[in-house]
Amino acid sequence: MTAVLDRLRAALGDRVDISAASVEGARADRSGHRSHGAPLAVVRAASVDDVQAVMRIATEARTPVVPQGARTGLAGGANAGPGEIALSLREMTRILEVRPDDLLAVVEPGILNADLNAALAAHGVWWAPDPASRDISTVGGNIATGAGGLLCAKYGVVRDAVLGVDVVLADGRLLRLGHRSVKGVTGLDLTSLFIGSEGTLGVVVGATLKLRRLVAGEVLTIAAMFADVRAAAAGSAAVTAAGIQPAIMELMDAACLGAAHAHLGLEPPPAGHALLTVQTDGPAADAEAEQVAGVLRGLGAAVTVSHDPVESERLLAVRRAMHPAMQRFLGTTLIEDVSVPRSMLPAMFDEIARVEREHGVVIPTVAHAGDGNLHPNFVYSGDEVPDVIWRAADDLFRAALRLGGTLTGEHGIGVLKRRWLADELGDDQWELQRQVKAVFDPLGIMNPGKVFAP
Amino acid sequence: MTAVLDRLRAALGDRVDISAASVEGARADRSGHRSHGAPLAVVRAASVDDVQAVMRIATEARTPVVPQGARTGLAGGANAGPGEIALSLREMTRILEVRPDDLLAVVEPGILNADLNAALAAHGVWWAPDPASRDISTVGGNIATGAGGLLCAKYGVVRDAVLGVDVVLADGRLLRLGHRSVKGVTGLDLTSLFIGSEGTLGVVVGATLKLRRLVAGEVLTIAAMFADVRAAAAGSAAVTAAGIQPAIMELMDAACLGAAHAHLGLEPPPAGHALLTVQTDGPAADAEAEQVAGVLRGLGAAVTVSHDPVESERLLAVRRAMHPAMQRFLGTTLIEDVSVPRSMLPAMFDEIARVEREHGVVIPTVAHAGDGNLHPNFVYSGDEVPDVIWRAADDLFRAALRLGGTLTGEHGIGVLKRRWLADELGDDQWELQRQVKAVFDPLGIMNPGKVFAP
Repeated sequence: MTAVLDRLRAALGDRVDISAASVEGARADRSGHRSHGAPLAVVRAASVDDVQAVMRIATEARTPVVPQGARTGLAGGANAGPGEIALSLREMTRILEVRPDDLLAVVEPGILNADLNAALAAHGVWWAPDPASRDISTVGGNIATGAGGLLCAKYGVVRDAVLGVDVVLADGRLLRLGHRSVKGVTGLDLTSLFIGSEGTLGVVVGATLKLRRLVAGEVLTIAAMFADVRAAAAGSAAVTAAGIQPAIMELMDAACLGAAHAHLGLEPPPAGHALLTVQTDGPAADAEAEQVAGVLRGLGAAVTVSHDPVESERLLAVRRAMHPAMQRFLGTTLIEDVSVPRSMLPAMFDEIARVEREHGVVIPTVAHAGDGNLHPNFVYSGDEVPDVIWRAADDLFRAALRLGGTLTGEHGIGVLKRRWLADELGDDQWELQRQVKAVFDPLGIMNPGKVFAP
Repeated sequence: MTAVLDRLRAALGDRVDISAASVEGARADRSGHRSHGAPLAVVRAASVDDVQAVMRIATEARTPVVPQGARTGLAGGANAGPGEIALSLREMTRILEVRPDDLLAVVEPGILNADLNAALAAHGVWWAPDPASRDISTVGGNIATGAGGLLCAKYGVVRDAVLGVDVVLADGRLLRLGHRSVKGVTGLDLTSLFIGSEGTLGVVVGATLKLRRLVAGEVLTIAAMFADVRAAAAGSAAVTAAGIQPAIMELMDAACLGAAHAHLGLEPPPAGHALLTVQTDGPAADAEAEQVAGVLRGLGAAVTVSHDPVESERLLAVRRAMHPAMQRFLGTTLIEDVSVPRSMLPAMFDEIARVEREHGVVIPTVAHAGDGNLHPNFVYSGDEVPDVIWRAADDLFRAALRLGGTLTGEHGIGVLKRRWLADELGDDQWELQRQVKAVFDPLGIMNPGKVFAP
């Protein structure tokens, strides 16, 4: 191990950081979980060359490498542990090219999503992926996890917004995957294979992003209060079934809503009530807001429609307060990330209620209702996830599968969900995926123990 | 070989077709190229079970299999030859499920794109991929080639419109890849890996498609006549750079335009003139058409804008007449399929003119200008592609690469473009792609000689 550190230092000098604060920090993302000890070092790459140097040394020494961005993940996918090198891309933040005429940008992986979009706005364009973490998460991390967000039903997920990636393989070779053109079918789509691969195939060191024009015109916000969460879920499904495409459609159940109100110092919402917050944009924003309000009022909701940006921001702030409010009022949680076909949203809330009842647990839930992605938060106390929580989560995940859903819509597998991966994929596909990984990483040094570990 | 046929017949009865007409037909797609002899048999699968039976027999006998749809491909990717089984999916045409509320459909691979969309229209939804062959090409073939079309810049390519695929592997195992939900990041994205894999990884036997709501309101058509093709290309790039997103933006050069007019019995267009045909749709269709017309008039084009569906259809018919007109008036062609960033369209037309000059060849060209995808048609006579045509095509492809483009935007590699694959991918990626293929098809019986053959 000392030999590896010596070689890293010889190649990378003070980019090799073994300070206690750094290696301790590298153990954890924002999932509430950490590895069982500190990694060897945090190497802060400043260039593609740095990444290649690290990977060559790691390959020769058979030392595992964990690529890290801003460590805002929610599945433990970037947690680094003993004997591993934490390879940080966070300092590679340059925007290498912006082409509004071609609707593309070329960037380094460490730039924050929000910083990129602030720079792009000056050109009249944006990168659509908008995970709730966009102010603090990196573009490279968004790609590595295949991140989603609030706007996905209308504007797509990361997979829809990446034209190509530059990657450094385990052995240090640099590959340029994908295209700069709108279309391109030259050979197998390895770009898509890297999106959501959670650092198991190689290190994303650059990306060619597909941009959109900024959406002109006003954004309307509809806040709809329902008597219970199932009614709110039915409201969301009814909006989609009516053929309306909102930009955002977010659902908060009573527990989340109460915590958010408390966090913001607002009056408590009516007991048991759930909130659906919808935004419409683009040339049909007005007409769509009318339609949405009509559908939701028809289902018994108390509906407010706002054209005013300040008022809109106030309405959406309740949704945005969810994560800090949860941490403040609800305690430690295991965050699930199931996704179901949109029509199944009411049935999925029935299942959540059943799991709460049967396992005696509390599961405050927020959902990107517009695309069927739910975040049930299993509340517990203590440092370790108790068995009862694992059992309840297992029950809930299987319910999602029965409804045609999936284990993870946008957070990824990491360490927290690897126990269920084979259940969803089936043994044949699980084994095949492991073999595909082995093509890229024959020595198994890329983020071992994540995703595919049994 | 007789033993294989006997086993196929024992398992599949009269679904095994060895008639001369069938095996001869299976030698060729619509690229103008055919294999050097007839395959063993055409097996017409009626079910997933049939496909599994064929693949099990093929694996045991080490017999190559070429999956086929409607054989409308343009790269020879589905041409079957001596010693091979042509496995036709064309009779698996069922629509298993349509869910307008979830914006998805589950279909068998043999259904024609146009037949699917006719059925979906009754539900108020559509599947966006629209290759020019949509009336005659299958959904499975569209997926296997990663097909594009006219609407791609606004409505996406096949990769953006498939949630999951069911595939039968070389050894007969059935895998269900992907999701029914909008979001899903469970493990590696093998669905994307199959899209555009041209039958080299396995057989697509089913697909879960991502649908869109039918676009309401009128469609406007803008026909803009330019004095030469470079001006038309500059007009197209200017529309994109102005931030307008048409549904369709198609370009025809003078040779294509002349042939199309002759084919339709219209007056010849002014000598040397090129046509840009643009359509706008959706809630901003009117305003966008005004903008497009303004931009193009400002560049010196003679512009007609039509709100009338009959007149619109007449204007677009000129573009639609291109392929039959080419066959009738221009002779045999090698169809290129390069794609470049949209700003590079004028420069690419300069390169086409240069290649025509330097190699003494004629290259009538049509382009999906809205997304930067060009189809230069190298005209030649005789049964074999002459060396001068290969050299000119090689020159043109390298020019596209220099402009940040790619060898194939939507037709795929097949046999016609395999000689250039490694040039674009680089040797490392090319080798890695072959290794990924080998994970799925260790015996190399899936469509051998296509895409990856040196």
